[in-house]
Amino acid sequence: MSQPGSPVGLHRVLSPTGVLPQAAERLDTRRELWPDETRVRVQRLNLDAASFRQLEQTYDGDGDRVRGAVLDIVAARGKMQNPVTGSGGMLVGTVEEVGPESPLGLHVGDRVTTLVSLTLTPLVVEDGLRSWDGRSEQVPADGYAILFGRSIVAVIPDDLPAELSLSVMDVCGAPALTARVVGEYTDPVVAVIGAAGKSGSLSLAAAKAAGAGRTIGVVPHEGEAVLLTAAGIADVVAVADARDPVALSSAVADAGGPADITVVCVDVPGCEGGAILSTATGGTVVFFSMATSFSAAALGAEGLAADVTMLVGNGYVPGHADLALSLLRRHPGVRSLFERRLGSREAGAGTMAP
Amino acid sequence: MSQPGSPVGLHRVLSPTGVLPQAAERLDTRRELWPDETRVRVQRLNLDAASFRQLEQTYDGDGDRVRGAVLDIVAARGKMQNPVTGSGGMLVGTVEEVGPESPLGLHVGDRVTTLVSLTLTPLVVEDGLRSWDGRSEQVPADGYAILFGRSIVAVIPDDLPAELSLSVMDVCGAPALTARVVGEYTDPVVAVIGAAGKSGSLSLAAAKAAGAGRTIGVVPHEGEAVLLTAAGIADVVAVADARDPVALSSAVADAGGPADITVVCVDVPGCEGGAILSTATGGTVVFFSMATSFSAAALGAEGLAADVTMLVGNGYVPGHADLALSLLRRHPGVRSLFERRLGSREAGAGTMAP
Repeated sequence: MSQPGSPVGLHRVLSPTGVLPQAAERLDTRRELWPDETRVRVQRLNLDAASFRQLEQTYDGDGDRVRGAVLDIVAARGKMQNPVTGSGGMLVGTVEEVGPESPLGLHVGDRVTTLVSLTLTPLVVEDGLRSWDGRSEQVPADGYAILFGRSIVAVIPDDLPAELSLSVMDVCGAPALTARVVGEYTDPVVAVIGAAGKSGSLSLAAAKAAGAGRTIGVVPHEGEAVLLTAAGIADVVAVADARDPVALSSAVADAGGPADITVVCVDVPGCEGGAILSTATGGTVVFFSMATSFSAAALGAEGLAADVTMLVGNGYVPGHADLALSLLRRHPGVRSLFERRLGSREAGAGTMAP
Repeated sequence: MSQPGSPVGLHRVLSPTGVLPQAAERLDTRRELWPDETRVRVQRLNLDAASFRQLEQTYDGDGDRVRGAVLDIVAARGKMQNPVTGSGGMLVGTVEEVGPESPLGLHVGDRVTTLVSLTLTPLVVEDGLRSWDGRSEQVPADGYAILFGRSIVAVIPDDLPAELSLSVMDVCGAPALTARVVGEYTDPVVAVIGAAGKSGSLSLAAAKAAGAGRTIGVVPHEGEAVLLTAAGIADVVAVADARDPVALSSAVADAGGPADITVVCVDVPGCEGGAILSTATGGTVVFFSMATSFSAAALGAEGLAADVTMLVGNGYVPGHADLALSLLRRHPGVRSLFERRLGSREAGAGTMAP
């Protein structure tokens, strides 16, 4: 190789120089591997929903033109990153070659999915996407992609439907970080806000498995309370509007709180104050919702004189995909909540984009 | 009292019912105390800069009308919260009465400043603000304010100029949380981004005092490097643009990194990736900048497969004001950086609003 490799892929950045692959205009897609890289034969791209919607609207739903646009982007940039939305997606494929110094632990023939974005993954499409009608974010494709030394990739298990596995892996950071935080306390009370959702149900199960003394699952209405109770994964189920600090903290208190650890998994804005007020002094709030406002969290804790640790939910914890899949296998209640959400789509071959 | 008190002041909310004092339209300003409350005789309000600017512009800089507007707001809402900007400010005063169950540790006659916002503090103005010309955010005032059981207030020390003390207290959460995180590691390498600023210089000193093995102060240009070197509070001084992840992480690495703990104190957007890339596996990034993007931090760590803990910089840690003031007293280099920033304003009697 012409230059030393970088575990985060700096050596594949063609322009502008000195930026990370995600910020790059154009990546080097040569098929030869640096020693710590891995090449994957691509079978399907799952475009980010926002990206696909933008393309569909721009081209009035004309599938041929949408396909042409995706091909143009990948050819021009060496990666699938919609220049308008900035987003990418993920891919499913089979490991084709593993560099001698790759730390990812993969073997040729492994069926894998990337858990990092397509926006930083060198990609070459070799079939003109001829099997795709351009009308869904599920893109059958033949080509190859390059994974860096420091990448996130998971082997798709044989014992679960692919769509179910991918849906679990999409949110696998939440249960892994929850388990880690629970391990720092003794028999903690753990409240999960948005507990009947994907990341919420996995986080509840992870908290219990990691040693939580009591788990409180908070849901927004009776309908979800019935579902969560039936799933049998929360010690107590509470109903409250997470945007109402007084209602939320009262509900958590009545359910055996305040919480030592509060995990926010509900994707609506304005839950910071309630989560902080529901948490005991010395406790931890883990924010997994992308709707979290940094300043609302910081100023909210100060306004409440709340001595709590507040974590930005990092989607990457080593071993996160395996942990989440094993929780799903061990807890039929978690699986039933996932399958209910996948609903009719489960019958198809499709997968969910991150 | 007609209803039981709440340590966060719920009992003082008149409308709408059930919200936190900060979100309230109107607070109960009765001078009688609930058992855990404290009443302060107000001497000066420091209006939030954004709030004062808005009032000044609305009334074309007419001081009488600005004064009238502030009086109207306080009378109508029972607190100083600009309805347009949503912001308040802080106050300086003297403790007048302490409820028998107050946990704040104050005594009648203590000269104090509030470190929580005026937006949640019951306030009555009794002098019509007649000593204020309405043309500066420094508002001489006579009246009273109520502090709740769970409030944040600091006694203004006698041995330092008031403006210097208030300027230190304004950022005292950063060194306190930095010290706490450093205590969780053994001889960690600590990088402070924005190290010549107020929160940055205090965080550097706090890290060393708490046991950092090596402190790296990162500044944006040579001018600040000279100042920081002269202050003598960093083991190594490095120059880098914090918005450039490759440049920042290289500079930290060259200075003895990667960092076990990276403290972000620079108030410009786009520093998340660089901070994450500068931090070792298993390390911690503490974000104190209000310019931090929650999603950029969460997705950035995932894109870099970075197993780092990311903390939202909570402005409240018990004992934070005392710690920060003691650091300033012990480190002439920190004090010189603060005094330099206060500059000519130091001569006046004014204080800095948070």
